[in-house]
Formats: sequence, C-alpha cells, structure tokens
Amino acid sequence: MEKEIVIKISNLLNEVRNKKPLVHNITNYVTVNDCANILLALGASPIMADDIKEAADITKISSALVINIGTLNERTIESMIASGKMANELNLPVVFDPVGAGASEFRNATTKRILEEVKINVLRGNMSEIKFISGLEVSTKGVDASESDLKSGNDEGIKICKNLADKLKCTVAITGATDIVSDGKRVAILENGTKMLANVTGTGCMTTSLIAAFCGAGLDYFIGAVSGITAMGVSGEIAFEKAGEIGTGSFHIAIIDAISNLNSEIIKNMAKVQFYS
Amino acid sequence: MEKEIVIKISNLLNEVRNKKPLVHNITNYVTVNDCANILLALGASPIMADDIKEAADITKISSALVINIGTLNERTIESMIASGKMANELNLPVVFDPVGAGASEFRNATTKRILEEVKINVLRGNMSEIKFISGLEVSTKGVDASESDLKSGNDEGIKICKNLADKLKCTVAITGATDIVSDGKRVAILENGTKMLANVTGTGCMTTSLIAAFCGAGLDYFIGAVSGITAMGVSGEIAFEKAGEIGTGSFHIAIIDAISNLNSEIIKNMAKVQFYS
Amino acid sequence: MEKEIVIKISNLLNEVRNKKPLVHNITNYVTVNDCANILLALGASPIMADDIKEAADITKISSALVINIGTLNERTIESMIASGKMANELNLPVVFDPVGAGASEFRNATTKRILEEVKINVLRGNMSEIKFISGLEVSTKGVDASESDLKSGNDEGIKICKNLADKLKCTVAITGATDIVSDGKRVAILENGTKMLANVTGTGCMTTSLIAAFCGAGLDYFIGAVSGITAMGVSGEIAFEKAGEIGTGSFHIAIIDAISNLNSEIIKNMAKVQFYS
Repeated sequence: MEKEIVIKISNLLNEVRNKKPLVHNITNYVTVNDCANILLALGASPIMADDIKEAADITKISSALVINIGTLNERTIESMIASGKMANELNLPVVFDPVGAGASEFRNATTKRILEEVKINVLRGNMSEIKFISGLEVSTKGVDASESDLKSGNDEGIKICKNLADKLKCTVAITGATDIVSDGKRVAILENGTKMLANVTGTGCMTTSLIAAFCGAGLDYFIGAVSGITAMGVSGEIAFEKAGEIGTGSFHIAIIDAISNLNSEIIKNMAKVQFYS
Repeated sequence: MEKEIVIKISNLLNEVRNKKPLVHNITNYVTVNDCANILLALGASPIMADDIKEAADITKISSALVINIGTLNERTIESMIASGKMANELNLPVVFDPVGAGASEFRNATTKRILEEVKINVLRGNMSEIKFISGLEVSTKGVDASESDLKSGNDEGIKICKNLADKLKCTVAITGATDIVSDGKRVAILENGTKMLANVTGTGCMTTSLIAAFCGAGLDYFIGAVSGITAMGVSGEIAFEKAGEIGTGSFHIAIIDAISNLNSEIIKNMAKVQFYS
Repeated sequence: MEKEIVIKISNLLNEVRNKKPLVHNITNYVTVNDCANILLALGASPIMADDIKEAADITKISSALVINIGTLNERTIESMIASGKMANELNLPVVFDPVGAGASEFRNATTKRILEEVKINVLRGNMSEIKFISGLEVSTKGVDASESDLKSGNDEGIKICKNLADKLKCTVAITGATDIVSDGKRVAILENGTKMLANVTGTGCMTTSLIAAFCGAGLDYFIGAVSGITAMGVSGEIAFEKAGEIGTGSFHIAIIDAISNLNSEIIKNMAKVQFYS
C-alpha cells in the first residue's frame, strides 16, 4: 500500500511537469518570491494577483488556487473570497494556509469567514493552527509548546486531523516533525524532512503552493497533499545534506535547487510514507 | 555596425557605473527584491515608493522610472500615473512592463490607461503581452502557444515590434528565446540568454529594471533597451555555465553574481547582436 | 571596557538563542523576506502583520517591534502608530528605521509623526537620515555626498548621534563605514563590516531587525543596538571572505549563512568596538 502511494506521488510529479498547471496564489508578501520560484522549480507556473478587480478573472484561467493569510489585510480578504468562490464554481482545487490562525482576532475571524464562504479542498497548517480551527482548547505550555505538541504523539494528531477532515469535508494536512494527512477516511504519516526547514521562512507557504500544483495536475487531492509535503520533505533532506553545514541562507537556496532536480527515482528512493485507511 | 552597437553597450555600462542612476520602481511585490539587488549589482541605485502621497516626489529625485503591473492594484495605479506624468514633465525615461497584459480585463484597462496618460519611452514584454497591446488577435493554440510563437519566426516578430514602436513613438522590446528591439526605425535582434531564465521568476522584471538603469545613464533609449537585455542575456549564460546543473535556486543567485561582475570585456566577447536600420 | 562590551554582546547573543524573542516587523515589501530569514538565522522568531485590525494584537504577543518606513503607505502608517503605542504600553522595545527620511515630504511628515506619537527605544539610520531627523541642514554635495559624509570624521558624527539620543531620550545608531551608537551618555564606535554590504539591498533593514531581536532578549537597548550592528558587521566580513569575489548574489546568501553560524567565540575574536562614556 505504501509502495502504491509512492508510485502515485511520482506519477503525479510527472503530470505536473507535463501539464504545467497555472497556480493562482493570493498570499503574503514575505514569502511570495519563494512560492513563485518553488512552483517554477517543480514545473508548474505561478501567478499572483490580489486586487478584487481581477482576482476572480485570474482564478478563471488557473488550475488551482492558494489562499494564504500570512499578511492578510482588509483589501485582499475580499479577493480571497471572490477567487475562492470562482474556484468552487469551476471545480478547481482550493488550498488554504491559515498562517497564524489563533494569533489575533482578525486572523481568527478571517479564517472562519473563509471556511464558511469557500469550499476548501486542502487545509495545510501546523499543529497549533489546526488545533485552533478544530476548536480545541490549545493547552498553553509556554516556550516548549511545540516540543510537547510533538511528544503528544501521532495518535492524538491523527485523531485531530481525521476529525477535522471529516468535519470540513476536505483533506487536512498537519505539518511538523511528522506530517499527518487525512481526507477523513485515508490517513498518511510522512516522515521526510529536517528540523532545519523551520529555520527558513516560508517553507510552510512553499509546501502549500506545491500542494496546489499537485492538486492542479490530478483529481485526488489527498494524494496532491501527500505529494506536495513529500516533495518538500525529500528536498529538505537533500538540501540539508548539501548545505546544512554551510548555513540557513545556502540551505534555503538548496531547497529550490532540490525541487528543480526532483524526479520519480528520487521520490521512490526517499519517500517515507505510512498509509492507513 | 554590430560592433558599433556592442561598443555602445559597453560604454553605457561604464556610464551606469559612473553615474549610479537612481531608478524609481513602482513594481510588484513578487520580484521587487531581485529588482533592487540587480540594480545594485549593475552599479545603479534602486528606490521603491508607491504611495500617491510621495510617488511623484520620489520620481523627481530619480534618473529613470519603472512601471511594472505584475501585482497591480487600485491604490498603486494612481501612483504609476502620477509618477509617469512627473517623469514626462522632467524628460526622465519611463520603462513600462505590462506584466500579464491580456490576462484580465483589469490588466488590459490599466495597460491602456497607462499608455494613454503617460508617454512611455521603452515598452518591454513577452510576445503575447506585446501582441495584446498591438491589438492583434492572439491565436489560441493551447499549451504550446509559446512554442509556436517562436516558430513563427523573427520576421513576424520584427514586424510587430517595429509597427508598435512606430505607433507608440517609443522603443519596444519583445523578449523571448530571441529578443527583438525596435524604435520604429532601428531594429536589433539579440541572441543571448538561456532557456533556464524562464525557470526563475522575475527575470523579465529584472530586465526591465536594468533597461531603466541604462536609460537613466544615457539618452539613446533604443541602446538602453538593447543594453539591459544584453546584460541579462549574457549574465544568464554565465550563470547557466556556473550553476545550470546545480538547480534553479543557485542559477537565480548566479545571475545576480554575473551582473555584479559584468564589464566591457565580457560584453564585447559575448554579446550577440544583429542590427538593421 | 571594550572587552566588557564584547562579553555583553556575546552573552546577549546567547540570550536571543535561549529566549527566541518574537519580533513584530511592520516593514517594507522589498526586504521583508531577508528580515524574516535573518531573524530566524539569529535564533529569533519573525512575525509580519500590518493591518490595523490586528497590528496591536500581534505586538501584544511579541517581544519587540520594528517600524520600518521603506515602502510606507497610508494604510500601514496607522498600523505602525497603533503597534508603537501598544509596545509603549507594554514596555516592549520599539526600533525605528526611518528609511529615506529626507527624500519626500511624506516620509518626513511620517517620520515626525512616529517620533511624536510613539516612544522609540532605538533609532537606526544612515547619516543623511539621522541628520534630517536632527534638523541639521544637510549640505548638498551632489553625487559624492556620502563620501564627504565619511570624511567629515567621527567627531562630528559622535556629536550628532549623542545630541539626538539626548533629545529623543533613546539610543541612536548611525550606520555607515564606521557605525556610531549612543544613548546620550555612552558612545560606541563600531568598525566591523565591509563596503560590499552597500551592494545588497536590505542590509540596513536586516540590521534593524537584528537590533530588535537583541533588544527583545535584554533590557539594555544601547547594548542591543551595539549587538545587532556588530552581528551584521562581523557576518558581513565573514561573508565577504567567503563570497566577496563570487558576486553580490552569493555574498547576500553568505551574510545569512554567517548570522546562522554566529557564536560567542566569533564575536569575541572579531568584534571591533570602541567605547566612551
């Protein structure tokens, strides 16, 4: 079964390279250049457009939509909603990255509004963002919160992921030291990656954009999410091998290099996927 | 004649290094960092300012203006117009990059408005953007549209370029596998570059900013456009030689390295320019 | 005395690594990605949020605030003020980078407004920005203005720095070939760095963000400013050693690498600090 999934990932990578899906990103200005470059490196095409006067029109010519609230503002929220609705109408995949959900009332209200007004196909966040969306009480543990998140084990994570996927009728991806993906029925546990990915801004945003590219090239969005996360995890490992000791600047560049050199062979040799259904 | 042009390019590069022209960029947030860094690498100075309350004031202290609609929005369009008018008043060169013209009604209307309200000195775009502006029917050929654009040969491209230059009374530069520049009378065909430039976001935007720097250092904007495109093409080849096999991330950095090391000797040895008048 | 300061810098670096201060940046879209990555490289955590509906809320959960007017606009100025006031209320350090003060009426008025409405803890700028704020007549010397700024010697610089620090009741840092820091009583002269830092956009902005991280980890903001500037200067030297001959793109990446590898030993061996009180 694991082998089957890995083959699906590597086939979908080839589909991305053949179809060159145009991915419309309404995203933050911190990591937008990396999102564009990682999409090009993968073989997809990026387009960024966030004015209400054209957002839906740009979605119309795209194969997938990314909504990322990293630097949300009142102007672009309306564009996110308009583009999201257009994508829904055209049955295009919508990938939502609720950056910082839980950190301010504004982010919380916006996250809620997007989930209510747009049908999301893939939701990707870290554990605290996903827990916030799940409406769970996030236990405050001070500075080592993320540490204890990890130690709470995958069992709790899987439950949260699966339940939220079921509730939102979409694929939910929780990324961290271990990544968990579920569409409510199927569950994948992904073990690729390196801690150093947390030392470069935007590796989460880039993963979201990669997921959108994979979803834009195939119809199984669960596999799309697994593929995007695996592509980033494997490339993170390759980049770490190559530049981990040089520093975080070189590691950052090496991630994009690795995505641009990714192929079926590498996926088959390196992907660490466990699958449950 | 070709030799003469190459000498003009290399002289203008020296002028840029001597005069350090300040280039005002009203541009998109995707590639803005690269535009700033490539201008510094060339020896020019970048300034970015897009609020209507200062746009024209910043243009006033600059040597050239870039208007790039990559992530246009209602707020900054007014600043583009105000800065454009100020540049016209002061006889400063205005370089216009109609990113995505043809892709949405909003971009089309904005492109039209800018061309009507601002006297543009250099227009740089890819074939489909320039065809849109020319009012030509762009034949829809699906995914291989750009391929067939190329195969249609340079003759058609030269005609489009020359006609539009004549109509707009400016220099028009069409960049692609082969670059075509015309001011309505003179025509240059530039053959530098590498396909890999299309795998890094912003190489078009960076070329536009380079053109503005060259135009800010000399009065012949046709030569300014030829110089900016040649600088990028030659640097792309050097970067490909150095980092093409490493990946698109390293290639991206190597482009900026190459621009920072560019000199007359390199231009003279590598520039591939054909000239007709 | 110098040795004591160097020990304080290296201790504060360890504090940053232990406390991982969250630094809220309301900054420009040109260099924002570098600011985020340099903060992560140092061991701090970046957060960018500029909408009035959340700016103060995000400041509330942060350890320090950066206000950088590099691409100021009417929308975000209100957020700068709101966040600044919140930081003041909570006694969080506010670091202000008056990018381009003096270049337009809008920047001048905004600079004035921020200084009037927000209590700034550290002000970091280049000589011409600081002179503008000091209300000094900046003698216009054409293209070599910055050259003559340098030749005017440190004595004048120290006086300007100390007087403004005294007037604003904050730490003032003037960065350039030689950096000067004063809190009105103490003065530090910092001699690290390389001319090549001026060939990469955002090294000033990054220094400002580094200062905020150091100030977020300790209570002596004079030492925070000295630490941020020393970290950048030392890293610039290391980067120059490694990549100076390759080009400005590689040098840019090497700066972030060097910050990510910075440690007490390097600070102790390389910091060039003179101290007067």
